[in-house]
Amino acid sequence: MLLTPETLVGPLMEKIEALAPIGRLPGIGLWRRSFTADEATCMDLVAGWMKEAGLSARRDAAGNLIGRLDGTSGHLPVIAAGSHLDSVRNGGNFDGPLGTIAALVAVENLNRTLGRPRHPVEVVAFTGEEGSRFPGGFIGSRGLTGELTPAELAKTDADGISMAQAMRDAGFDPARLPSARRSDWGGFLELHIEQGRVLESRGASIGLVYAIVGMQQVQVTVRGRADHAGTTPMDLRHDAMRAAAEMILSATEIVEAEGPPAVITTGRLEVEPSATNVVAEEVRFTFDFRDADPARRLRLAAEIRARCAGVAARRRVTMDWEIFHDVEPTPCDERLVELLAASAEELRLPTHRMVSGAGHDAMVVARICPAAMVFVPSRGGRSHTPDEYTTPEQCAQGAAVLAGALRRLAWG
Amino acid sequence: MLLTPETLVGPLMEKIEALAPIGRLPGIGLWRRSFTADEATCMDLVAGWMKEAGLSARRDAAGNLIGRLDGTSGHLPVIAAGSHLDSVRNGGNFDGPLGTIAALVAVENLNRTLGRPRHPVEVVAFTGEEGSRFPGGFIGSRGLTGELTPAELAKTDADGISMAQAMRDAGFDPARLPSARRSDWGGFLELHIEQGRVLESRGASIGLVYAIVGMQQVQVTVRGRADHAGTTPMDLRHDAMRAAAEMILSATEIVEAEGPPAVITTGRLEVEPSATNVVAEEVRFTFDFRDADPARRLRLAAEIRARCAGVAARRRVTMDWEIFHDVEPTPCDERLVELLAASAEELRLPTHRMVSGAGHDAMVVARICPAAMVFVPSRGGRSHTPDEYTTPEQCAQGAAVLAGALRRLAWG
Repeated sequence: MLLTPETLVGPLMEKIEALAPIGRLPGIGLWRRSFTADEATCMDLVAGWMKEAGLSARRDAAGNLIGRLDGTSGHLPVIAAGSHLDSVRNGGNFDGPLGTIAALVAVENLNRTLGRPRHPVEVVAFTGEEGSRFPGGFIGSRGLTGELTPAELAKTDADGISMAQAMRDAGFDPARLPSARRSDWGGFLELHIEQGRVLESRGASIGLVYAIVGMQQVQVTVRGRADHAGTTPMDLRHDAMRAAAEMILSATEIVEAEGPPAVITTGRLEVEPSATNVVAEEVRFTFDFRDADPARRLRLAAEIRARCAGVAARRRVTMDWEIFHDVEPTPCDERLVELLAASAEELRLPTHRMVSGAGHDAMVVARICPAAMVFVPSRGGRSHTPDEYTTPEQCAQGAAVLAGALRRLAWG
Repeated sequence: MLLTPETLVGPLMEKIEALAPIGRLPGIGLWRRSFTADEATCMDLVAGWMKEAGLSARRDAAGNLIGRLDGTSGHLPVIAAGSHLDSVRNGGNFDGPLGTIAALVAVENLNRTLGRPRHPVEVVAFTGEEGSRFPGGFIGSRGLTGELTPAELAKTDADGISMAQAMRDAGFDPARLPSARRSDWGGFLELHIEQGRVLESRGASIGLVYAIVGMQQVQVTVRGRADHAGTTPMDLRHDAMRAAAEMILSATEIVEAEGPPAVITTGRLEVEPSATNVVAEEVRFTFDFRDADPARRLRLAAEIRARCAGVAARRRVTMDWEIFHDVEPTPCDERLVELLAASAEELRLPTHRMVSGAGHDAMVVARICPAAMVFVPSRGGRSHTPDEYTTPEQCAQGAAVLAGALRRLAWG
């Protein structure tokens, strides 16, 4: 029994639109923070839809909403799907809710047309995926993996409220967090908007995510010597800006020579003393380097650093290299990716195999069970803005691919 | 009659040290602004020394102090030497006073040992060379060339006082400015500290300045597109930072390939939106490009701009190119440079032919008569700071070279 996008589009968009107004703040736009009354309103609404669909619904100790259909065979691992319901500040309507609601609508329709699944099936609405209230994000999914340590729980939001306090204020007891840990999941699928322009530019409807990239963020500090821009010949300079420009370009060329999916970005750069007629004494800039292959990522990171050190030596400046964020790549489960590919093929949807360049709950869940992701196009690549948009047809295509894979996994 | 550094060092340093405390502001350091009581105190002190030395002394309508020895032959053009007495904020003791006092001490000694000169000789203390009170600077020397237009006189200092008002407050009538114009000068020599590290690094005591560089300062604005640093593959980017780095490096390479004395500097750079994980949408940076040869300067400026435009096209960003400062190079008078070289040779001082990378009063005076400059070393290349230092021996060597050239010019 094939669920088509046409079957799913109505119920899917109706629910996404129902969630859209919740958490709008005057002058800020949509900002649905974890453990707030607005998030609870969303969770309650979705819990009601879960029950209407024949699922049980409960909040776990980490604050996630979990809807469940028991399976017909005893002791089989849980097949799970979902995403998050919180948003960034001034965010859009699709980042999170699409994957959560698509999982619910898919399971509801499979249950109605095929009856009870063989495996238990769970639809999850994670809390706090975005780092827009507490640093680090992924609160709900890290609750499942047991990573919400006391140090994490002590982190505070902009108002000085700790994560533990926010949980308590929302009716959750941090002491009960161990009960949120899961070892019974056999697979997890997450549908998400792409948040980039790859699908749009490749003319594909469905992104089959084979890995979530690893990331290294570095603060580079180049120190030279401030000199008069007129009276100091080129060969007597220790020019921090010239060295920084050469480092940025060299790193970019290393990454481009290696090819996709590796990317590198310098998004910040500051100069001292910042005067038109003074040679730069100090330049501080960032590298954000991402790649999907663990071995290549390490090799390239080392090569970039060595090349920059060579530039520093040649240009007679010093270089400090502070890695302030380092995350390993997460390969998606190959069998699950193939199931998603088969599901898309069955629907005759054009696919593109790609990486996720940003982190998602599936990246965390992959630490406890096989996981994979489906992407649908983001118009103009826009996300984390009210302009974030995916057409109803594209949303429903993603939901149908998800449904096909869940059918094979849990009902097959 | 050869004046040696040993003869000049005592009177020279005594007078430089007498000027040093005047214009020190609490918490700021030396800041001797044009048309202030502090500058007047300096001018009065130097005027007294002029009279003691047998020169007449007067303030012209632009505020310059002019000491004069009449010549024995009628109607010969004036031979002039000097520099300025004002300073930058938190400046040093040598930038300006050295050239002014050296000219006075040289003329005093030549007059005492050789009697009256054949040409009239003038020792000048210019006002307002530094742009640290009124934008543009060179107030006194531009008074001599007739460049103090009503628009210039209307420019205001940080307290909103116009240049015209400041002149009136100091007892000068802007309406009389035409009387400060000079057409009777036949040559001008200026001794100045180098303000760079060329002499020190070349092991030379005397810099023979064959040109004062021309300058082009450009504000470059590169506009691309803000994109997510993780989700946007390299080939889909319009990365303003990557383009800017390539422009800065290309321009540097063009200038280095051409060789000295051309120099180029990027001292300022700002990024929008300035986030580690966002591809730069806009980068604004400056170029400060200087060269001494008029034709080469124009050719290189065009080549740099064309190369940057090529980078912008290749990297799919736009580029705005705003030239906000453009000054032609000023070649020094070859005959005067040779006289200075002969004078240094007579004293057996090691010389280095070089450009001045910064502007000086001689650059302005060169518009009304032949002009040239002598440099003495700046320790560590430091200037415009209390650390500015040239040894008494080096100061006196510069004064002796100046004296030798004045002897040949005015007494020969």
